[in-house]
Amino acid sequence: MLNKKTLTDFFLGCGAPYETADWVLFGAPFDSTASNRPGARFAPKAVRIESNGIETYSPRQNRDMEETNIFDGGDLELCIGDASVALWQIEDAVKNILNDSKRFAMIGGEHLVTLAAVRALQGLHPGLRVLHFDAHADLRDKYLGAKLSHATVMRRVWEILGDGSIWQFGIRSGEKSEFVWASEHTSMQIFNLDGLQKTAASFKDKPVYLTLDLDVLDPSVMPGTGTPEAGGIFFNELLDALQSMPKMNIVGFDMVELSPPCDTSGASTAAACKLLREMLLMFA
Amino acid sequence: MLNKKTLTDFFLGCGAPYETADWVLFGAPFDSTASNRPGARFAPKAVRIESNGIETYSPRQNRDMEETNIFDGGDLELCIGDASVALWQIEDAVKNILNDSKRFAMIGGEHLVTLAAVRALQGLHPGLRVLHFDAHADLRDKYLGAKLSHATVMRRVWEILGDGSIWQFGIRSGEKSEFVWASEHTSMQIFNLDGLQKTAASFKDKPVYLTLDLDVLDPSVMPGTGTPEAGGIFFNELLDALQSMPKMNIVGFDMVELSPPCDTSGASTAAACKLLREMLLMFA
Amino acid sequence: MLNKKTLTDFFLGCGAPYETADWVLFGAPFDSTASNRPGARFAPKAVRIESNGIETYSPRQNRDMEETNIFDGGDLELCIGDASVALWQIEDAVKNILNDSKRFAMIGGEHLVTLAAVRALQGLHPGLRVLHFDAHADLRDKYLGAKLSHATVMRRVWEILGDGSIWQFGIRSGEKSEFVWASEHTSMQIFNLDGLQKTAASFKDKPVYLTLDLDVLDPSVMPGTGTPEAGGIFFNELLDALQSMPKMNIVGFDMVELSPPCDTSGASTAAACKLLREMLLMFA
Amino acid sequence: MLNKKTLTDFFLGCGAPYETADWVLFGAPFDSTASNRPGARFAPKAVRIESNGIETYSPRQNRDMEETNIFDGGDLELCIGDASVALWQIEDAVKNILNDSKRFAMIGGEHLVTLAAVRALQGLHPGLRVLHFDAHADLRDKYLGAKLSHATVMRRVWEILGDGSIWQFGIRSGEKSEFVWASEHTSMQIFNLDGLQKTAASFKDKPVYLTLDLDVLDPSVMPGTGTPEAGGIFFNELLDALQSMPKMNIVGFDMVELSPPCDTSGASTAAACKLLREMLLMFA
Amino acid sequence: MLNKKTLTDFFLGCGAPYETADWVLFGAPFDSTASNRPGARFAPKAVRIESNGIETYSPRQNRDMEETNIFDGGDLELCIGDASVALWQIEDAVKNILNDSKRFAMIGGEHLVTLAAVRALQGLHPGLRVLHFDAHADLRDKYLGAKLSHATVMRRVWEILGDGSIWQFGIRSGEKSEFVWASEHTSMQIFNLDGLQKTAASFKDKPVYLTLDLDVLDPSVMPGTGTPEAGGIFFNELLDALQSMPKMNIVGFDMVELSPPCDTSGASTAAACKLLREMLLMFA
Amino acid sequence: MLNKKTLTDFFLGCGAPYETADWVLFGAPFDSTASNRPGARFAPKAVRIESNGIETYSPRQNRDMEETNIFDGGDLELCIGDASVALWQIEDAVKNILNDSKRFAMIGGEHLVTLAAVRALQGLHPGLRVLHFDAHADLRDKYLGAKLSHATVMRRVWEILGDGSIWQFGIRSGEKSEFVWASEHTSMQIFNLDGLQKTAASFKDKPVYLTLDLDVLDPSVMPGTGTPEAGGIFFNELLDALQSMPKMNIVGFDMVELSPPCDTSGASTAAACKLLREMLLMFA
Repeated sequence: MLNKKTLTDFFLGCGAPYETADWVLFGAPFDSTASNRPGARFAPKAVRIESNGIETYSPRQNRDMEETNIFDGGDLELCIGDASVALWQIEDAVKNILNDSKRFAMIGGEHLVTLAAVRALQGLHPGLRVLHFDAHADLRDKYLGAKLSHATVMRRVWEILGDGSIWQFGIRSGEKSEFVWASEHTSMQIFNLDGLQKTAASFKDKPVYLTLDLDVLDPSVMPGTGTPEAGGIFFNELLDALQSMPKMNIVGFDMVELSPPCDTSGASTAAACKLLREMLLMFA
Repeated sequence: MLNKKTLTDFFLGCGAPYETADWVLFGAPFDSTASNRPGARFAPKAVRIESNGIETYSPRQNRDMEETNIFDGGDLELCIGDASVALWQIEDAVKNILNDSKRFAMIGGEHLVTLAAVRALQGLHPGLRVLHFDAHADLRDKYLGAKLSHATVMRRVWEILGDGSIWQFGIRSGEKSEFVWASEHTSMQIFNLDGLQKTAASFKDKPVYLTLDLDVLDPSVMPGTGTPEAGGIFFNELLDALQSMPKMNIVGFDMVELSPPCDTSGASTAAACKLLREMLLMFA
Repeated sequence: MLNKKTLTDFFLGCGAPYETADWVLFGAPFDSTASNRPGARFAPKAVRIESNGIETYSPRQNRDMEETNIFDGGDLELCIGDASVALWQIEDAVKNILNDSKRFAMIGGEHLVTLAAVRALQGLHPGLRVLHFDAHADLRDKYLGAKLSHATVMRRVWEILGDGSIWQFGIRSGEKSEFVWASEHTSMQIFNLDGLQKTAASFKDKPVYLTLDLDVLDPSVMPGTGTPEAGGIFFNELLDALQSMPKMNIVGFDMVELSPPCDTSGASTAAACKLLREMLLMFA
Repeated sequence: MLNKKTLTDFFLGCGAPYETADWVLFGAPFDSTASNRPGARFAPKAVRIESNGIETYSPRQNRDMEETNIFDGGDLELCIGDASVALWQIEDAVKNILNDSKRFAMIGGEHLVTLAAVRALQGLHPGLRVLHFDAHADLRDKYLGAKLSHATVMRRVWEILGDGSIWQFGIRSGEKSEFVWASEHTSMQIFNLDGLQKTAASFKDKPVYLTLDLDVLDPSVMPGTGTPEAGGIFFNELLDALQSMPKMNIVGFDMVELSPPCDTSGASTAAACKLLREMLLMFA
Repeated sequence: MLNKKTLTDFFLGCGAPYETADWVLFGAPFDSTASNRPGARFAPKAVRIESNGIETYSPRQNRDMEETNIFDGGDLELCIGDASVALWQIEDAVKNILNDSKRFAMIGGEHLVTLAAVRALQGLHPGLRVLHFDAHADLRDKYLGAKLSHATVMRRVWEILGDGSIWQFGIRSGEKSEFVWASEHTSMQIFNLDGLQKTAASFKDKPVYLTLDLDVLDPSVMPGTGTPEAGGIFFNELLDALQSMPKMNIVGFDMVELSPPCDTSGASTAAACKLLREMLLMFA
Repeated sequence: MLNKKTLTDFFLGCGAPYETADWVLFGAPFDSTASNRPGARFAPKAVRIESNGIETYSPRQNRDMEETNIFDGGDLELCIGDASVALWQIEDAVKNILNDSKRFAMIGGEHLVTLAAVRALQGLHPGLRVLHFDAHADLRDKYLGAKLSHATVMRRVWEILGDGSIWQFGIRSGEKSEFVWASEHTSMQIFNLDGLQKTAASFKDKPVYLTLDLDVLDPSVMPGTGTPEAGGIFFNELLDALQSMPKMNIVGFDMVELSPPCDTSGASTAAACKLLREMLLMFA
């Protein structure tokens, strides 16, 4: 359930009251299906605290968080250990936000939380497109015996939205069968972000959900993630690509898979924090 | 499913073939319900590797692992993210061991894995007693919305075995309601191990399952655990108490909640490794 | 300046509104004079977050935080780099609390913050006694050229309160001159806590300020501090001694020198968190 | 006060005696105003020790430290906790070096130490130019209530040297007001090092002080710094740019903000060490 | 001595039986001459465990480890502390593999282990070429008094194979004398991998041994190594260069100097793991 | 070879010039035979730096390092990777000290360095007794194929000094054969320090060499060591026992096996530092 009181330790500049806010930011601290190194559950709190250390102003965009109107609702209290219950809890919170005619940004948690967001969006936003940045295809049908997993999440999303609704960028890892499957059911750009601008332009005013798995970034930029995958995108490459997109009808977005316990130097959390600022300044 | 091939990197001196072994050692690398700091899933592998560095001989007991007859079956492959499936997988593996007339030692994983062991044992060993060492009562009915959790495991065990079957030692943390509930349904020794010798003697030849949550030890001895709880038992205290017990009919035991990612110095893993050697020398 | 809005992430059970609370808890995140390993500035936030993981109930005292009436005001915003300004800011915040007829608990930060508390208390509470637990005497006149330092704090306190007002326990480190000076101006119990009960009894209803430098604990219990000093007090020793004290007129207390960056395993933060719970249950 | 005895553990190849040396290297281990993660105080010692592991020869420049004539004076003993006293101590040490007709390289500590160097230089070197590499503008008037801070240092430098004396490169972070202010009072190249060669050429034989905040480098190269700022310069980019500069009249330089406690892998300290070697080979 | 039983925890997809395998993978956990930060001894085990987390399929090469026929023999048991004995043990193991008409991949361990491989190969494979990727020249005659050292290994290799047999790429560090010596005795490409394709083509069907010191990679990609050297090759650069090589007669290769204790985030081990997969898919 | 120049960063209060000093302190940074976690080579430098943070005065002994007359010669430069050469280098350095009629304290490094000290002492001090504190017996004949190893060091010492010359305390780990062997050739007190006072008294004025392996301490006190062994001695226990010894003719002593890379919190290094101060105050 979403907390609607004003947080004291809100994310950088996100101190608007719920009632009047256009966007709602919240944390979904869930990582029970993490098969490799867990810890994404600690990300939302870490990002909020770290945000004290950065500026509200972006020289890149010449925009300031002071100009936004965002409410930070804190972290959802989620069932640990039962993915289906936790997903239902997230879905419920998102629906409440949508029902109040607001848009939202969600800080994961592991990538599975994206499924809850899509479930909440699907009824209200027919024709939803999902713009997916990731090192991994996440298209397995099952992973280690589980249907609900960070490694199956985009397959589950596809079951809801169907062919032609998922655009994947930066994918550089997966089983052979995932790549084969993708060639029929999603649009996948491997290794890099080429074509992003054109893809975004094609969406016109269709509703778009953007999901960013931070491991799309190179592990040198983002070692603090559960499944670092060498050979990725650099920070400025990602921001340049995002900035190059024409304005879209983004109804929500998430940033997932930051794992503070794996971020021994603190630099990953700082990078995630800055990235969230830039995305909020772009989309909110 | 249990691997029955001979492992190359087996735990210290546990290289007997499955067929002729009296005891089977295996890992249950599951920690999805860990509410605090996860990482217990990495414990069995860490303990096996660390065991290369210690001696097979115990000067305390003047016994050597070379005198035992134990097969190390490696780690079970468990479903990550769905506790009920993982528990079923462990239960199945334990039943197979029991059906082959062997006893077993399980390296967790989080404490919830104990429930699977008890489920497997219950039919075959009527009158089963559970000897429980822990800092936490683990007697909640639900925790963060989940019935299956490391914080509810002994309550679930009680639902199987009933009053008079659970003996708890070293408990120093819990909700008030857990202590009240315990006063009616379990035998609980708070803060220390007083009375252990007498309890053990009272079991006579009844089948006993021993479950050791490593956080019963003081965090100075065992910082590498998900929920360190100050004010615990010291290493020699624990070994002295265990050695003081008269011989019992131990049908299986587990050692749970070592979290290698929290064990930054490596000393907790080394201590767990030595403790496992001592328990195998005592019971197997 | 103290925040008077209700915090969302307050310390364990300290969610009372300011207006009706008897006690106020707040953080003083200052560590600029730390000469060895800094990091105490991060302690209050770390303690609040960690407190999510522990119970509100103390089996030791059979008391629950739910029975207390404490407001958590969050962290003061302090000037970094100018100790005299930061001290003035803390003093001001404490005075406001005292003027509202409340008592307070302060989470440091480094030990120098105690000076601000004493300055605020001195006018309102004539005859103030300071009960000081520490590994270090903190009685130097200057340290590395500075009069305001964690190593001089009790000397500065003495300049305010004079002879006969400072009782020190557990001291096991200092320059020779500090021990000589102490023999004339304070009451110092070296190495242990012997005599604490008698000292406390002697205070009768005089106002008492208790200051606990966590490095009085042995580094095995509390490695996460800037200046670990081998050969200290164990956790249960400290709690037993504190519990043995007769009821006193404690007008405020602090717990200082937890350094989360030095707490690589997390066990020190967990211990500090539990200790704070126990002290709040004793005094508030 | 500067130590003039020959150090045993001097920095790589800097073993010349004070009397005959052309350049003096020393550490300024001060970080009291660090608002984020402190630790820069440990940098000079860490750099000296790490330098044992690298070669005196630079294949880039085909020059060897054996060809230089540098005295390493060790670390200054600085007042911890009072920035104004510490600055005076550094200024005094630099003046002594300048009075002996030597040039100097200073290893920080935090960026505020640069102010002391400029104060010492200003009288002796009229027309001083400051070449400033940094991720942050450092142009605030006050930061967290303090005039003397790592975040205000270039503003304080400007108060001494005035318009037209500060050239900033690589700046990618700051408050909006800092960028506005800079447009009138300094020359600022944002995001990259473009124009450096031309700037350097324009200095002709004017005295130049170079100050390098290591966080100008990308956090993937330099995670071990207090305020990592994603999207920076890579190592070879920086060295290429520095090598491209025509010969200037560099009277001193500093390298600041390495924080060894944040350098969990050791790679940042190694990189700083190599960078210092390259700069000494270029300038000394 | 090489273990010929099937390992349970073999490296990703390397589960072929010894008898029928074409290639043998094994670990050489030796690091006694590491002059800087030791730990490479832990690399083979760390790489095997980490390989559980990555896919057998390479989207880069569109090949799968399932298509290979590799036996993983585990780690050799090596004498610790006497380099000459350890080298003999490795040489012996390699000879046995070669005598069984198999090729091999060796996971170090420090770079000195390469010498043992070359010793074993020299008799059987006249005209052997060594393709050497490294940040360091490794051409000293002695290092810290020892002839057998990670810093002298390529000099020792040259003593066996003579002029015209060693091709070095990516070298960016060494004593001046090493670069001078190299100009007469080896082919050395400094700083980058330019010319690799042409070099590989020139080998035709001559037997080639490839040795990859992971520190040729930039420390941002590979901080987890004993002697990180700033300014190196990026991950995709290395893979692109390796993929660009025409097919060669590679009789064996090694990957050395991963140091898991220096890999605090785990990203270096993950990168090494992926690199090993790619090399096995290219060469085996 | 021992450095005879005055060190700038000498250990706490050990700034006497070589010529007039009674005792010489030096580091032997060797750890090539470490079979488990290496890193002891970094101990001497870490101890010297840490000593800046502690007082010269011991309240336990009411003595001050200012009253001693000790020269700190820094670290020996040792051959890495060839134990026999390194031992010869240490032996040579010790002989030079002894020839100048001084006594010495050596900071390891791993335990093997003790052998070099005994070799140097044997000729000059007939009837030498070795007082050995350790968790491990170190009495193997060979370890991992090597005669020279930290695990064989006391056996090698015995080959020099023979029966009746080695007194071992605190031993709690070893192979069965070591305990059997010890019963005939050394005097071994297992698990604790009982009888130390009596043993010391029996030495009368015979020359004594004391060797302290820091892992005799409990890992809660000293996690920062290569082979932590649970169930050891606490800090005050050790100091009380050492203080209880009557004055002996101690001709030298060492403190070995501190491993700073394993000391993630820094508390082990601080404890070793304090222990060294106490031993120097007792013996020098």
